[in-house]
Amino acid sequence: MKELEERILKDGVVKKGDILKVDNFLNHQLDPALFYRMGLTWKRLFEGEEITKILTAATSGIAIAAVAALPFGVPVVFAKKARSANISDDVYQVNVHSYTHNEEATLLVSKQYLSPEDKVLILDDFLANGAALNALISLAELAGAKIIGAGVAIEKAYQHGGDSIREKGIRIESLARIASMDEAGGITFVD
Amino acid sequence: MKELEERILKDGVVKKGDILKVDNFLNHQLDPALFYRMGLTWKRLFEGEEITKILTAATSGIAIAAVAALPFGVPVVFAKKARSANISDDVYQVNVHSYTHNEEATLLVSKQYLSPEDKVLILDDFLANGAALNALISLAELAGAKIIGAGVAIEKAYQHGGDSIREKGIRIESLARIASMDEAGGITFVD
Repeated sequence: MKELEERILKDGVVKKGDILKVDNFLNHQLDPALFYRMGLTWKRLFEGEEITKILTAATSGIAIAAVAALPFGVPVVFAKKARSANISDDVYQVNVHSYTHNEEATLLVSKQYLSPEDKVLILDDFLANGAALNALISLAELAGAKIIGAGVAIEKAYQHGGDSIREKGIRIESLARIASMDEAGGITFVD
Repeated sequence: MKELEERILKDGVVKKGDILKVDNFLNHQLDPALFYRMGLTWKRLFEGEEITKILTAATSGIAIAAVAALPFGVPVVFAKKARSANISDDVYQVNVHSYTHNEEATLLVSKQYLSPEDKVLILDDFLANGAALNALISLAELAGAKIIGAGVAIEKAYQHGGDSIREKGIRIESLARIASMDEAGGITFVD
């Protein structure tokens, strides 16, 4: 998506430790109009697929998923983050390692809101090593839901987390795929 | 807002400890189409006011604010939650006590995204004792921004947190004002 790539070049900041800060429009300040156009793009990319629910993860996926869901006309469920695993019969839960915060976390979804009848589109802000996306896939699988695919805003394609998920047969539509980036400010995209 | 009141009566669950669970459409599963109509309602209520930015707080305010911002055509900034106060020159921060989680937290906003030029509409999901809304008001004041008012989805009017904020001259538009609720399932609204 040309508009998203241009916005990353304009407002993204590459920080030490292979971090792309997009606090200007995606992770602290939010640009809902952009998220809506991202939703329209995913809607077009997944045209013809039946989707009953959008799944994302707290905190950073919530804004994108909530706005981008509008063209789909379906509810969003966001997996909640818990600091410690607290086994309960009422929830599906998976452990995930956060590389950003260097900690283990548990993602959980109430069984009420994800079921075998659901056809799920996963939406998230970033895809790097794939830990978060894999956790969301596992939650959908635990619920017995059908996974239609995943829409990602920014994929660090050079980290190959997306490749291993695509090899499992899961379709991923990333709107900006970063081929390389460095602190001197250079960001290049795939294609 | 009649639609929101009806949705609370249909899907809200009153739990022990004066808790209203609206996980079905507001705090776990989300109904973006409803949030959009809430945005249109706030837009109509604040018609004629110049608004340059919408401010909310992580986590539960993000979805409502991001979607409801669309009719306003302005960016959203969400205050991030930090577990401990970590003084930095780059952020405005306030301490807030979370009654839901019974812990002290710090809310912070980068100085980049809130300035004296901003005319701020605060949006949030709940208003009970007013702790969260007061924290957001303090953040806007620290930035020297002008506060146009606040839009709240659900106000527990019987807790009077809103009254003390209104007495300071801050306009609050709550879309559903609960007069009373009890575990037997009874919820009544103001008016």
